[in-house]
Amino acid sequence: MTRDADAPPSWIDALQWDENGLIPVIAQDANSGRVLMLAWMNCAALRLSAQEGVATYWSRSRQRLWKKGEESGHVQRIRAIRVDCDGDAVLLIVEQQGGIACHTGRESCFFRELAGEDWQNIDPVLKEPRDIYRPKP
Amino acid sequence: MTRDADAPPSWIDALQWDENGLIPVIAQDANSGRVLMLAWMNCAALRLSAQEGVATYWSRSRQRLWKKGEESGHVQRIRAIRVDCDGDAVLLIVEQQGGIACHTGRESCFFRELAGEDWQNIDPVLKEPRDIYRPKP
Repeated sequence: MTRDADAPPSWIDALQWDENGLIPVIAQDANSGRVLMLAWMNCAALRLSAQEGVATYWSRSRQRLWKKGEESGHVQRIRAIRVDCDGDAVLLIVEQQGGIACHTGRESCFFRELAGEDWQNIDPVLKEPRDIYRPKP
Repeated sequence: MTRDADAPPSWIDALQWDENGLIPVIAQDANSGRVLMLAWMNCAALRLSAQEGVATYWSRSRQRLWKKGEESGHVQRIRAIRVDCDGDAVLLIVEQQGGIACHTGRESCFFRELAGEDWQNIDPVLKEPRDIYRPKP
């Protein structure tokens, strides 16, 4: 039996995609060990990420493929792709270009920590968003 | 204006719960830095986890609160609760009792890594599941 050339490879078929055809993906910094973000991929995004070695997610708000860093330059180079025991979550070990994953200019999107009954910012802004996303000359 | 005593506190209200009233939660080991698992919480699970300082998740398969380690003893003591910039994902920094988060007896549920076109097991089993879950005498 030959496989359809356009059919997803078996390693992608082996995953548990949710009712929207998505899977949650954690990105962890290969150097600092920080959990940088949680985003989502569809089958095409994961396949592309594996092929290119840089992370492309599925933007649920924009309903399109979203190459991380396409505007900011904060690309994520993939060192490893892991999957969990249930096959319903993916972990990327990445080299985070610029050392900034968050659109707020912080290393990690998880920069707020519960203190008593409040979320407190615990991480510094490394680069102001206006300097990350400013129009190209 | 007084708040209903049963109403969720504002730090829980501030989160983005999905259409099923759930939020994805990443558990990271405070010592090894390993990403241990991704699971889900509802409002009650997160509130309980924060109150008790040990992780209770919402089991989607069993549709009930699931105190991690209730059978295995592999409880997760919470050192910190973080939330991401969008408020739609939570990160727990935990002390993993027994050093085993996965029901397969491995440190992390993310024990399979993509190698070419195959998922390969890269982590050792630290304790056989039959020894973790054996009936109490």
